[in-house]
Amino acid sequence: MNNYDVVVIGSGIAGITAAIYLKRASINVALIDMNAPGGQLLNIKAIENYPGFKEITGPDLAWQLYEQVTKLDIPFYTEEVIDIKDGENKVVTTTKSVFNCFGIILATGRAMRTLGLPNEANYRGKGLSFCATCDGALYKDKTVCILGTEKEDIDYLLGVCKEVIILNPTLECEYKNNKQIRVINQAKIEKLEGQSKLESIVVNGEKINTSALFINLDSVPSISFIKDIPIKKDKGYIVVNDKMETNIKGIYACGDIIKKDLYQLVTAASEGAIAATNLRKEIKRGCNEMK
Amino acid sequence: MNNYDVVVIGSGIAGITAAIYLKRASINVALIDMNAPGGQLLNIKAIENYPGFKEITGPDLAWQLYEQVTKLDIPFYTEEVIDIKDGENKVVTTTKSVFNCFGIILATGRAMRTLGLPNEANYRGKGLSFCATCDGALYKDKTVCILGTEKEDIDYLLGVCKEVIILNPTLECEYKNNKQIRVINQAKIEKLEGQSKLESIVVNGEKINTSALFINLDSVPSISFIKDIPIKKDKGYIVVNDKMETNIKGIYACGDIIKKDLYQLVTAASEGAIAATNLRKEIKRGCNEMK
Repeated sequence: MNNYDVVVIGSGIAGITAAIYLKRASINVALIDMNAPGGQLLNIKAIENYPGFKEITGPDLAWQLYEQVTKLDIPFYTEEVIDIKDGENKVVTTTKSVFNCFGIILATGRAMRTLGLPNEANYRGKGLSFCATCDGALYKDKTVCILGTEKEDIDYLLGVCKEVIILNPTLECEYKNNKQIRVINQAKIEKLEGQSKLESIVVNGEKINTSALFINLDSVPSISFIKDIPIKKDKGYIVVNDKMETNIKGIYACGDIIKKDLYQLVTAASEGAIAATNLRKEIKRGCNEMK
Repeated sequence: MNNYDVVVIGSGIAGITAAIYLKRASINVALIDMNAPGGQLLNIKAIENYPGFKEITGPDLAWQLYEQVTKLDIPFYTEEVIDIKDGENKVVTTTKSVFNCFGIILATGRAMRTLGLPNEANYRGKGLSFCATCDGALYKDKTVCILGTEKEDIDYLLGVCKEVIILNPTLECEYKNNKQIRVINQAKIEKLEGQSKLESIVVNGEKINTSALFINLDSVPSISFIKDIPIKKDKGYIVVNDKMETNIKGIYACGDIIKKDLYQLVTAASEGAIAATNLRKEIKRGCNEMK
């Protein structure tokens, strides 16, 4: 049995930032992730909107974050969490071990829904993107395609790109064809093509030349390990207040797993710092009450 | 007369992040600051809690932020803003020129209240600090002094340091002497001493050996240029909603200038991204209405 003040589940930028803030405040904290540290960062080829780096790859930023973790001697467990239990102390169970703790920070992010095409992974970060706000600027004045009809992302691309081809999986779309917009209804993407980067796609049998394909399908928050705890959710995302508290005392959440407006690296990091700061205060209050 | 979609006033990490997000979304944005880019960063010797950097100096991080500004060709005006006016278009007046714009982002931060001692600047970042959450961990298991009785910062230091000497400017203090705490009431700091870093201070005639002095006096948000606009404030700080909107349409605020719980680099950066994203949407809506 491992005992910690706080267990942070998930080691993307939100979870790592939370762990940094806790450890620097002398809170006994552990990080658990079933994968290597970095979370979605590991899938990002080029980051240009994280303050402090003109350009950095996701894996490089993940590495720099992990260096902060090791410098602070924060224990990192590469284990899959399969259950958490509430109670006077909370219990985190992984495939390998059991953790006892006062508080939990949930930071497992979300899985992007992909196309299921065989060569899809080759184009990730080379024309294939899951985030218009993050990557739209890379395709300034170019033609791009977007799968999905989410207004906010389409509007972002319309502000940046020459032409936006909306691949609408259904029949209804609020956008109409005009000089800058082409709408393809009941769109089904059949092929991705290009040598070293995405150059064209095949949609409903038609070949379309494009610099980028933005995939804008509902992504799925990674919370399947939360079984018995009645944690409040909205469309699968965890609901938190402005202190990053969930409805369950001592359980906080931050990053892409929570319901919010803006899913960005810098917002996730900030939420990690806020969750850590408020959980630290809660632990401190707990200690004072025991005295 | 300079015309921009958005003028960002203040070039700390909040203002620069806002400008980066706007420019990448193809919004015509300018940055104005009376000083060199970086804001309070220019006064920070060592940063260890900003995600992505194991350790970096404030001026180095300021430089890296400024590189992002130049890479994106964001115009930077080194001018002092002396007035802003609301209206159909907003007007920002500096000592040198006049800017017309649709929206304004206020990010001028706050000035830390200092001691007024002659050699004070020498110790800044060398034992003299204005932020317990930022720098407390540098003095783990050491003796530190804190000027002021703000509970949150004292609690933070109590969690990290061996001994906390509270220098209380008045007579009332909720803390009592114990093994870890010493309270000096009606404290007046007379001298700062030490060769290359702070080693001791003189308080009410008594020499006290200490590794650090945290100054925790009310700081002053830098908003003297807002004269005619009835912007909503709370104890001098600008009040915003979760979109970083002030009570004045088209005027947003972010960073240390706003009323909030956690004043950190990473929270300021996140607020900059949120302000930019929401102001961008407002501009977009404005354009659509005009069509």
